[in-house]
Amino acid sequence: MLNFELYNPTKLVFGKGQIEKLPTLIPANAKILLAYGGGSIFKNGVHEQVRKSLEGYEIIEFGGIEANPHFETLMKVVAVIREQKIDFILAVGGGSVIDGVKFISAAVPFEGDPINILKKRILFKEGSNVIPFGTVLTLPATGSEMNSGSVVTIAATQEKLDFGGSALFPKFSICDPTVIASLPKRQLQNGVVDAYTHVLEQYLTYVHEGYLQDRIAESILQTLIQIGPDVVETPTDYTLASNFMWSCTMALNGLIQKGVPSDWATHMIGHELTALYGIDHARTLAIIGPNLYKVMFETKKEKLAQYGKRVFNLTGSEEEIATKAIEKTVAFFHTMGMKTLLSENAENFEKTADFIVDRFEKRGWKALGEKQNITLEKVKEIVLMSY
Amino acid sequence: MLNFELYNPTKLVFGKGQIEKLPTLIPANAKILLAYGGGSIFKNGVHEQVRKSLEGYEIIEFGGIEANPHFETLMKVVAVIREQKIDFILAVGGGSVIDGVKFISAAVPFEGDPINILKKRILFKEGSNVIPFGTVLTLPATGSEMNSGSVVTIAATQEKLDFGGSALFPKFSICDPTVIASLPKRQLQNGVVDAYTHVLEQYLTYVHEGYLQDRIAESILQTLIQIGPDVVETPTDYTLASNFMWSCTMALNGLIQKGVPSDWATHMIGHELTALYGIDHARTLAIIGPNLYKVMFETKKEKLAQYGKRVFNLTGSEEEIATKAIEKTVAFFHTMGMKTLLSENAENFEKTADFIVDRFEKRGWKALGEKQNITLEKVKEIVLMSY
Repeated sequence: MLNFELYNPTKLVFGKGQIEKLPTLIPANAKILLAYGGGSIFKNGVHEQVRKSLEGYEIIEFGGIEANPHFETLMKVVAVIREQKIDFILAVGGGSVIDGVKFISAAVPFEGDPINILKKRILFKEGSNVIPFGTVLTLPATGSEMNSGSVVTIAATQEKLDFGGSALFPKFSICDPTVIASLPKRQLQNGVVDAYTHVLEQYLTYVHEGYLQDRIAESILQTLIQIGPDVVETPTDYTLASNFMWSCTMALNGLIQKGVPSDWATHMIGHELTALYGIDHARTLAIIGPNLYKVMFETKKEKLAQYGKRVFNLTGSEEEIATKAIEKTVAFFHTMGMKTLLSENAENFEKTADFIVDRFEKRGWKALGEKQNITLEKVKEIVLMSY
Repeated sequence: MLNFELYNPTKLVFGKGQIEKLPTLIPANAKILLAYGGGSIFKNGVHEQVRKSLEGYEIIEFGGIEANPHFETLMKVVAVIREQKIDFILAVGGGSVIDGVKFISAAVPFEGDPINILKKRILFKEGSNVIPFGTVLTLPATGSEMNSGSVVTIAATQEKLDFGGSALFPKFSICDPTVIASLPKRQLQNGVVDAYTHVLEQYLTYVHEGYLQDRIAESILQTLIQIGPDVVETPTDYTLASNFMWSCTMALNGLIQKGVPSDWATHMIGHELTALYGIDHARTLAIIGPNLYKVMFETKKEKLAQYGKRVFNLTGSEEEIATKAIEKTVAFFHTMGMKTLLSENAENFEKTADFIVDRFEKRGWKALGEKQNITLEKVKEIVLMSY
C-alpha cells in the first residue's frame, strides 16, 4: 500500500429536507453570492427552498454558469464578488457550477492573472487565501461537492484544465436526493456513467496490496450497476436516488484513491473530446474508457480479471474474464444510454487523434496512466479505435 | 436511507516513516504533553522516533495510561496540563491512550466537575473549548484515531462510560503500519476482533436501503477475514499490517454508520464484562456478540443471511444461512485466538447476568439495539447464554 494523507473537512449534509439547514451552515451576516447554472433550479423548486431558508441574508445571484464552466464566464463572477465585497459563495448546481465556484473562490483574492491558476495549475494548499463556499448539489455525478478539485475550460483556446488543493474543499455540501426527481434522463445517465468511470480510473490499474480500497471501489461499482438502470427511469424513488447520490460522492471524494495507483488517462483524453466537440463529459468517458482498456490490455488484464470476477461474477481464464469484463462495461454503458463511438457523438471527427496527440505534445506530456506507459502512440491508437 | 451528516476533519497521515512529519502537524512553539500507556513505545522505538522528530519543542511526558483508561488516572494528567499551561496533547498509543486523551482534552477547560462529562454524557460540539490533540497510533483496533468518541472507566464505581462530539476529532493521526511489528499476538488478535465487531455493530441490524454502506461494511469484514489470521503470525508483513491498520480505522471512523441503523448492544453489554472482570475489550465482544445474534435471531435473521451469503459465500435457505453465519463468526473468532465463553475468561461469574441487568436498570435503560427491542430480559438471556 502506498503512503497517503486523507484529509476531507467538508461537512456533508445528506438527506431529505436538508436545505433548510443552510442558516446553520453559513455564517450569520455573511454577504452571499448565489451561483447557479442554466436555471433548472427555478423549475425544480430548489431556488425557492434556498431563498426561503436564507431569508434575512444579503444575497446577490449570478446565473448562467455553463456545463464545463468557462474561465471567461467565471471571471465575470469574480468581478462581481470583488466589487460587492462578498464573503461567502453558495454554489447551487451540479459539478460544473461547483467546479466553477472553486475557481471563483481561488481567483477572487488571487494576485496576478487568474488564468495562471489554470495554465500553471496552481495548488491551493490548506490555509491559502480563498473565499469560503458551500454547495447545494442538484446533479450527482462528479463528487465535486466533497473534493477539492476543479476542471475549468478556457473557451478562447478550447482547453479543459484542472487544478485544486485542500483550501478548496466546500465548507459544507447539502445533498438532498429528492432534487434529482426532475432531472432530464440524459443527465441522470451521464451521472451514473461519470461516477462509474471515476471509480474505474482509481481501480482499473494493476493488482496491488490495497485490498480494502479495491473492495470499496467494487462496492461502488456494484451499487451503480444495481441502481443505475432503474434510477434513470424512476428518479422519484428515494432508495434509488439516495444510493445514486451517495455513490457519486463516494466515487470521487478522495477515499478510494488513498494508498493506491490511479490512471485518469480516460479523463485526460475525454476532456479533449468535450473541448473539441462539446460532447457531454460522461459520454466522452464512455467512448474512450473501454478502448483504453483494450489498447492497454497487457498491463491491465490482471486487474480487469479481478474486476470481471468480483463485479460481474465472470468465470473462465484470466484473459477471457478480462476481455469479457470490457464487453460487460460497454454493455452497461449502452444500458445507460451511452453511444460509445465518436462517430455517434460528433461530426467531422477524422483528425481528432492527430489533433489530441499534437495538443498533448505541446503541453509536454509524454505519457499518461498509472504506469506512465500510455504513450502518445497509444493515445492515438485509443482515439482511432473510438472513431 | 436515513438522513445523515458526515464530518471528519482529522488529517490521517498513513504509511511508512510518517512520524517524521510531526513538526509539520503540530504548531511551532506549542508546549506539548506527550501521553502514553504502559511503556511499549520505549521498546518498539516509537518514543525515540517521536522525540527525535519533535526536537526543539518543549515536551512534558505522562505515561501509565492504562487499558480502559481510568478517570482517576486521566485527572492526574488534567492537573499537569492546567498547571503547566500546555497547549497541545500528543497521544502516542492505542485506543485507550487516545480515548484517554480525548477526555483530558475536554476536561482541562471544563467548568465544573469533569466526572460529569462521563456521568452526564456531555456532548462536545464543534467549537467547544477543548485542548487540541493529535495521535501517533501504535495499536490498530478502535478507530479512535479518526473518530470523536471516547470510552472511559470510573475505577471507583467500575463503570465504563462513553462520550464525545465533533470538537474531539484528533487534529491529525499518524498511522504507520510498521509499528505493529513488535505487538504481542494477543493485542493483534484483539485488534482484528475489535474492528470486526465494530463493523458488525453497524451492519448486522436489519435489511435496509443503504446498499452502498452495506457493501463497504462487507468489504471491511472480508479484508479482516483475509488478513486477520496471517497478520497476527507475521505482523512484519507490510501488506498485512497496512490492510489491518486501514481496516481498523475504516471500521469506526464514522463512515459506514452514516445513513443506516446501528446496534451497539454487544458493546454496551461487553463494557460491563470489562468493568467487572477486566476482560480485554475485544474478548468481551467475542463472548457477547454471537449470543446476541442467537437471542435476537428473529429480528436479525434477514441481515444475518445477507452477511452469510456475501461475506462467507454460504448457500441454503435464509434460516440456514443465517444460522451458519453465526457459526462462521464464532469460528473466525476462535481462529483469532478468542475464547468465547465467559467461564473461559473469568471466575466467579455466576451472578453476572443479574448484576448487569440491575446496573442497566439503575441507569434507566429499558432496551438496547437498533430496534430498541433488546429488553433487559433479552440482555439476561444473552449473558446467561455466554456463561
